Amino acid sequence: MNGKFIVIEGLEGAGKTTARDCVVAQLREQGITDIVFTREPGGTPLAEKLRELIKQGLAGEQITDKAELLMLYAARVQLVDTVIKPALARGAWVVGDRHDLSSQAYQGGGRGIDQQLMQALRDTVLGDFRPHLTLYLDVTPAIGLQRARARGELDRIEQESLRFFERTRARYLELAASDASIKTIDATQSLEEVTLSLKRAVRDWLTEQA
Amino acid sequence: MNGKFIVIEGLEGAGKTTARDCVVAQLREQGITDIVFTREPGGTPLAEKLRELIKQGLAGEQITDKAELLMLYAARVQLVDTVIKPALARGAWVVGDRHDLSSQAYQGGGRGIDQQLMQALRDTVLGDFRPHLTLYLDVTPAIGLQRARARGELDRIEQESLRFFERTRARYLELAASDASIKTIDATQSLEEVTLSLKRAVRDWLTEQA
Repeated sequence: MNGKFIVIEGLEGAGKTTARDCVVAQLREQGITDIVFTREPGGTPLAEKLRELIKQGLAGEQITDKAELLMLYAARVQLVDTVIKPALARGAWVVGDRHDLSSQAYQGGGRGIDQQLMQALRDTVLGDFRPHLTLYLDVTPAIGLQRARARGELDRIEQESLRFFERTRARYLELAASDASIKTIDATQSLEEVTLSLKRAVRDWLTEQA
Repeated sequence: MNGKFIVIEGLEGAGKTTARDCVVAQLREQGITDIVFTREPGGTPLAEKLRELIKQGLAGEQITDKAELLMLYAARVQLVDTVIKPALARGAWVVGDRHDLSSQAYQGGGRGIDQQLMQALRDTVLGDFRPHLTLYLDVTPAIGLQRARARGELDRIEQESLRFFERTRARYLELAASDASIKTIDATQSLEEVTLSLKRAVRDWLTEQA
């Protein structure tokens, strides 16, 4: 049987790493042990090179929105075709730190790239490949950025304005509301409460799948 | 008045560099002195980084056809939006070593990427931006590769099979036949003859424009 692809999404500082550990513990409890971790952009040597370019930028050069988007899709299709699809095919489960929804939210919402262009690109590149479950950790940009700042220096994306992250969050919420495979978790709660909500969401979903 | 965008295309070893010098000499004779040179993939710091990844690849990782194509378009849109369009807008002429036709020929023809996907991507990324004139230097792969080999070590693309370059050339010829802005030059001729053909093609085209 093919494995499932579970993605964790949210703004910087939403608590994606903690959420990942919680999801994995949950899967292991269910006897699922063949689990592959991915992160986007990244997850293959080429995709990590692209991640570096996207995250750090290049001194003296402004990366255009379209170039950024195309680099994200280059990294994504490389990861999907060489890592995620083969893993699912052999029956492994894949837990991803970000996937396509990030582009929809950050590039579509935050940067305001035309919706039609976003959709044409996704359909062209990914066809109908989609995660089976997406856990969207919802925080306000203020809380998220405070947490991200506490962790250290901010990268090129994290240095965007608060308004950018507000547009990004609004798009996340909008897409989550219209797609049953996306579960929204209130990540402004205490760590214990977030963990509980996550466990419940994953457990309910696993029950639905059984 | 806006400048014009002239592109030189062809297989490896077709003689693109010599052709460029010849075109530039021709433009200068006409009093056109503000000329910007570009090469693709490349031409900006970001695009040159992408060029390196595309040309050299990464040890132990097979770059997928789609990832390669998306990296090419990321580099292209960065170059078009930050270099070519601003240059044309200020009235400069741009002479390009390769542009979109290379992707149509190499990735569409050589790699056999679906035509619909190729077109959707081009339209999505470039809109209706097109070169004003493309000079396609036509050589057989055998002659081209012999010349390229004589220059030194072959990169990841140049190491493709003869059949790959035959498919690429076939697509070049097919596209040139159906697009009046592409002039085909027989580049198997002697250097003197190629130069003469180029001069004639550019002169005739400049006359048409006047």
